[in-house]
Amino acid sequence: MPSADLSGKGILLKADPIAETFRAEVQSSLTRLSRPPKLVGILATASEPSKFYADFTKKQCEALGFVFELRKTGAAADGGNGGEGGIIDSGGVEEEIIRANEDDGVDGIMVYYPIFGPQQDHYLQQVVSPFKDVEGLHFKFHYNLYHNIRFLQPNSLLSSIPPKASTANSDANATAVDSEVPPPGTVKSIIPCTPLAIVKSLEHIGVYNKLLPYGDRAYGKTVTVINRSEVVGRPLAALLSNDGARVFSVDIDSVQEYTKRPKVPPPSNPSESTTATAASIKYHPRHVVHPSTNTLEGCLSLSDVVISAVPNASYKVKTEWLKDGCICINVAAEKNFEKDVRDKASMYIPAVGKVTILMLLRNL
Amino acid sequence: MPSADLSGKGILLKADPIAETFRAEVQSSLTRLSRPPKLVGILATASEPSKFYADFTKKQCEALGFVFELRKTGAAADGGNGGEGGIIDSGGVEEEIIRANEDDGVDGIMVYYPIFGPQQDHYLQQVVSPFKDVEGLHFKFHYNLYHNIRFLQPNSLLSSIPPKASTANSDANATAVDSEVPPPGTVKSIIPCTPLAIVKSLEHIGVYNKLLPYGDRAYGKTVTVINRSEVVGRPLAALLSNDGARVFSVDIDSVQEYTKRPKVPPPSNPSESTTATAASIKYHPRHVVHPSTNTLEGCLSLSDVVISAVPNASYKVKTEWLKDGCICINVAAEKNFEKDVRDKASMYIPAVGKVTILMLLRNL
Repeated sequence: MPSADLSGKGILLKADPIAETFRAEVQSSLTRLSRPPKLVGILATASEPSKFYADFTKKQCEALGFVFELRKTGAAADGGNGGEGGIIDSGGVEEEIIRANEDDGVDGIMVYYPIFGPQQDHYLQQVVSPFKDVEGLHFKFHYNLYHNIRFLQPNSLLSSIPPKASTANSDANATAVDSEVPPPGTVKSIIPCTPLAIVKSLEHIGVYNKLLPYGDRAYGKTVTVINRSEVVGRPLAALLSNDGARVFSVDIDSVQEYTKRPKVPPPSNPSESTTATAASIKYHPRHVVHPSTNTLEGCLSLSDVVISAVPNASYKVKTEWLKDGCICINVAAEKNFEKDVRDKASMYIPAVGKVTILMLLRNL
Repeated sequence: MPSADLSGKGILLKADPIAETFRAEVQSSLTRLSRPPKLVGILATASEPSKFYADFTKKQCEALGFVFELRKTGAAADGGNGGEGGIIDSGGVEEEIIRANEDDGVDGIMVYYPIFGPQQDHYLQQVVSPFKDVEGLHFKFHYNLYHNIRFLQPNSLLSSIPPKASTANSDANATAVDSEVPPPGTVKSIIPCTPLAIVKSLEHIGVYNKLLPYGDRAYGKTVTVINRSEVVGRPLAALLSNDGARVFSVDIDSVQEYTKRPKVPPPSNPSESTTATAASIKYHPRHVVHPSTNTLEGCLSLSDVVISAVPNASYKVKTEWLKDGCICINVAAEKNFEKDVRDKASMYIPAVGKVTILMLLRNL
């Protein structure tokens, strides 16, 4: 049970009980397989957090009955001087990825980033076969997420061409979105594992309302997501707004509002003629993004949920700006919330890593 | 003719005469088509350099007989408030790309970056169909470049899975690399247009030696490439080393050496047993990357060619560090070389933009 106290402070909710609910699901699905799935981890740096995460993956895999094999290359192998005269480039990592792609005995591939920095790492993420990409970092999965395409035909993963807008919004897909169950011949698209872990945590703590129809269960909630990277912030903002939430995406230089509900222009601007049309649309098939003149302080004062993913130890969300009773989730390795966060927050989740790893094994 | 003087200074070589040689080639290939190809430019920001580049593309297209259509969205349209309540996200750009992808009347697509920053822009680059990607920014083209896969079957562009290592290095491919002419059933892979423009410039000025076999014509040349971005620096270093050069890739935090020739360990290190093997290999099918303890000063003292692509007006390559008689090429919009660069350089190319645009039309 979450630790609570009588001081009037909010609840401190560790990731374990959330992860626990998925452990049983993952284990029971394992029993239906002829052999335990094999995950290959690729470690290419001497970074301590990456090593720690690799150990953690191994432990989780073994506890659940998956096979895990760690393959070291580059700086992780032989103190950075492995191979021919010290090959350090993506040669090493990239060749390990290609080897695992082509090995029928490998079911999933996990690469411990960061390795070279965002650009070259992004290149490597496309080298991983989408059939083995348990982290959900391949372009195709991001494309589906941004376009709110929830189900796909497995064969479509073979194509380098994005699905046509016409088929993506076809009747089959539009009706399918009312149900969590994939239509015949389709499977769920993989969702990048950190954003998925956050959504699953929000489901667990009741931010998603199960009485609402599937695909719109965050309707009525206002969420601020701090940081707009392609790994966490932007996909998360898209995911939550595709699920009905009003999301403020705050980055160092701008604030944007993500919503799938048509924007009704303020009454001070009666010349705009979109009101009638807007009122007649329930919601768009996927979120749209609007510029916002709101400040972070303004966004926080409106937000039921605040999610921060800023990789900077000195960055702190000011407790005084939070809406009383909101829910705060820290996604960064660093603590983005102040010590007194629970003076305002009704619930505080300090880390989601344990849920993330279960999402990954679930994808596998 | 290049401007030279009798002061002993190096030659200042503008891009025009280099571009001129491709103009005729592009125009003659146009006459073989039933209709002029159509390029769609997508402008999504109010950035002056992007607007300028869009105008420039239009002029070049019209002069050569291509059809060019500029489509504006986001901040480029209606002062940033176009569409429903000011939609600013990739929604606008992304939807324009998808519309052009699906329009059979559009042959090529050019998006004016930067728009959102490297990460989100990289996402957009994958949305452009590889069949219409005249800039060569799609992952598949980068993959082929890094793997020295020069020819491809057009159908392979449809697949999201990288070619198997075994087929990529198959006999067909290995023999093909001896000739510039694609084997039957294959076409040349698109090369990102800025790196290609630099290679074409180096061919033009004789750095590539046509007496050497195709695929190894930069053998014997030492090149320093300053900046290791995924758009210019890293693909360029890979391209030059795949063509036989020894390349130092210098970035803010490290120096790497790219070469396809086996590294013979220095005699001071006789315990390494790779010497015998190394000597028996002429060269690897593609470049390998080694860490280097060389400094920029050390690299420059060895380099026949220095290419700088640092997007920073205050960054300057020190003339005093250059090897006497070297060739310097500035790729950045800013001037990365000092005013007195021609005191040391035998040839200085201050910009390659005009060649780049012709490469793009050639790809089209």
